[in-house]
Amino acid sequence: MEIKLQLEKAAARYERELLESVVPFWEKHSIDRECGGYFNFLTRDGKVFDNEKSMWMQWRMVYMFATLYASEYRQDRWLELSRHGYEFLTQHGKDQHGNYYFSLNRKGEPMVAAYNIYSDCFAAMGAAALFKATGETKYRKEAELSMSHYLSRVDNPKGKWEKSMPGKPKRKTLGHYMMMANLGYVLNECLGTEQYEADIRRAADTVLDMFWNPELDLLFENVNLDGSVDLESCDGRHINPGHGLEAMWFLLQYARRTGDRRLAAKACYVVKSLLEFGWDPVHGGLFYFMDAKGLPHAELQWDMKLWWVHNEAILASLFAYEASRDSNFLDWFQRLDEWTWRRFPDPEHGEWYAYLNRHGEPTHTLKGGRWKCFFHLPRCLLFGTRLMRGSEMK
Amino acid sequence: MEIKLQLEKAAARYERELLESVVPFWEKHSIDRECGGYFNFLTRDGKVFDNEKSMWMQWRMVYMFATLYASEYRQDRWLELSRHGYEFLTQHGKDQHGNYYFSLNRKGEPMVAAYNIYSDCFAAMGAAALFKATGETKYRKEAELSMSHYLSRVDNPKGKWEKSMPGKPKRKTLGHYMMMANLGYVLNECLGTEQYEADIRRAADTVLDMFWNPELDLLFENVNLDGSVDLESCDGRHINPGHGLEAMWFLLQYARRTGDRRLAAKACYVVKSLLEFGWDPVHGGLFYFMDAKGLPHAELQWDMKLWWVHNEAILASLFAYEASRDSNFLDWFQRLDEWTWRRFPDPEHGEWYAYLNRHGEPTHTLKGGRWKCFFHLPRCLLFGTRLMRGSEMK
Repeated sequence: MEIKLQLEKAAARYERELLESVVPFWEKHSIDRECGGYFNFLTRDGKVFDNEKSMWMQWRMVYMFATLYASEYRQDRWLELSRHGYEFLTQHGKDQHGNYYFSLNRKGEPMVAAYNIYSDCFAAMGAAALFKATGETKYRKEAELSMSHYLSRVDNPKGKWEKSMPGKPKRKTLGHYMMMANLGYVLNECLGTEQYEADIRRAADTVLDMFWNPELDLLFENVNLDGSVDLESCDGRHINPGHGLEAMWFLLQYARRTGDRRLAAKACYVVKSLLEFGWDPVHGGLFYFMDAKGLPHAELQWDMKLWWVHNEAILASLFAYEASRDSNFLDWFQRLDEWTWRRFPDPEHGEWYAYLNRHGEPTHTLKGGRWKCFFHLPRCLLFGTRLMRGSEMK
Repeated sequence: MEIKLQLEKAAARYERELLESVVPFWEKHSIDRECGGYFNFLTRDGKVFDNEKSMWMQWRMVYMFATLYASEYRQDRWLELSRHGYEFLTQHGKDQHGNYYFSLNRKGEPMVAAYNIYSDCFAAMGAAALFKATGETKYRKEAELSMSHYLSRVDNPKGKWEKSMPGKPKRKTLGHYMMMANLGYVLNECLGTEQYEADIRRAADTVLDMFWNPELDLLFENVNLDGSVDLESCDGRHINPGHGLEAMWFLLQYARRTGDRRLAAKACYVVKSLLEFGWDPVHGGLFYFMDAKGLPHAELQWDMKLWWVHNEAILASLFAYEASRDSNFLDWFQRLDEWTWRRFPDPEHGEWYAYLNRHGEPTHTLKGGRWKCFFHLPRCLLFGTRLMRGSEMK
């Protein structure tokens, strides 16, 4: 099949899945009309199986509904659903220092303290998307405030909950820099500023200069402060292909906007390397965690296949194809797309399974949970559709 | 085969595995002669793949080597290996309040702070076993001191690292009571006192009165303060069959010593119920975590099969058979024994794999790691051999 036709067919499938399966599932089952906010824990057919409201998940849903409202598919109800979460979270979500708790109970009372600064990141993203959708100043203010809280805590992120002692080697972690790269991009775009340009640039350079190791041809999760790798420890050898691929499309998106060909070329190279390293040669799909030297991984669930890893890998392959026009990335897209779509979607109740075992069989039937909500999948479907239909692709 | 002969054959197999496979593996690979203490992270063939020295694992090894020295298999070198760990840990392991850190680096510098009070529990057990082995007062003192630190922190175990907020329902957790039941038993036995008798009794009663739910026929991990169950939340519904079975043999061991037939009968009933609930009807073996209502489990690795779960289940089935002479428990022992021995032992390099997937295939080749050391397996082999040869069994 001609590439153009092939991508158009896939784009139609992504668009249909977004609008006819994924969005309706969350619209129907996740809105807590009684107490505010969203239900995060949803069974296969949308029943609530826990009431905890995790800040990451809640704010990601505010972001996603606002982003859909601001998209080519605009529906007024999506703005209402985004505001619905925003009101609940800004009313109940902050501690006395203005930092977002990690989670609330159904009524909005704090369950878990504000020990995790990514709560503030997702708040900033959610509020920024609402500003883009509405132009209302209060959303911009909330985005900037949350961002300032995040930035003020970034050097000591865990605060009083920090358990590390001097005998533990100090590391830089990829998560912070990839978060900064995307958060800066989203804020600049949604708020219509260039305020975070230098932050994005610094984060992008750090990812490629410090975390990418050209000798070992690997992107590491944790590196020494000078960018060297500690191959003697589990956390030094830790590789997270999904994280790396997500980081790479953040960089490719930024490179596209700034026209930075050098950055794009380097990110494409890393995408290829991560896909080759992360792909399971026996059962297909991408591993969740890996060890750089193939030694046993410290985490039990390392060999599982996660929905978000495959969502981010699909976007990375499409961004890399767009940037390079290298047909290898189209081949990777097809391989990922085929493997993913054959296993994750639930034809009976809609939406996708979250967790498969190494063999590719679902281990859980949940559609929402502590770490899955209305975010990675709809973002992949929305951005994927756009990429495949984009003029750059054909 | 006649029961007596059958058990004698199995006992010989357990004894041989202990003395010819498991103990030699740890003697050969885990002793850090250069820096002190033990290496915890060992590959399939005994190579060190991380240097972190976790307090739980280190003290459990002190306990196990001392226990083996004090056993019918006494070898002088096991006392030396136990002291080797003790010296390192008492020299480097404590913070300014006298609480044990969670982990040290290879040289003995603290890596992770003393946020976990079970470190002190395992220190008390290890030191007590050394007192039993030697009669030297310093070990008794250390055991009593660690025990007093544990008890002083038990009402606020996480101290400044506590993240729970008022909106999170307060729960009792099984772990504390099962720890108290075993720790009290080990301390009384090793120190030759009855000092902890009331603590054990209270812990045993709490486990059966509060965590055992007769209507639902299940032993819960987390219950409300009045012993009721919160079936609306993931942590309320959380079932950990291996934990429960380990707790039950602690209780059966105590019931044997005290001649408490009522306690024994109740514990036997719970063993049967946990085995029936926890057994995987499709692939065999016991699940790691389960949901009381069969709803999706919050943890990714819930369906994995872990070595320690099967070690503790084997002991529970043998203790229950000893207490009840009910042939159902012998059937359970045989089923567990067959499933476990066919999959976990490594015939090539000795010792056992730690983690299998639901299908029963190893997902990791490690022999030691963050949560596996020289403890559950040798204890199962030692106690199992004794139980099968015990006069009560035949």
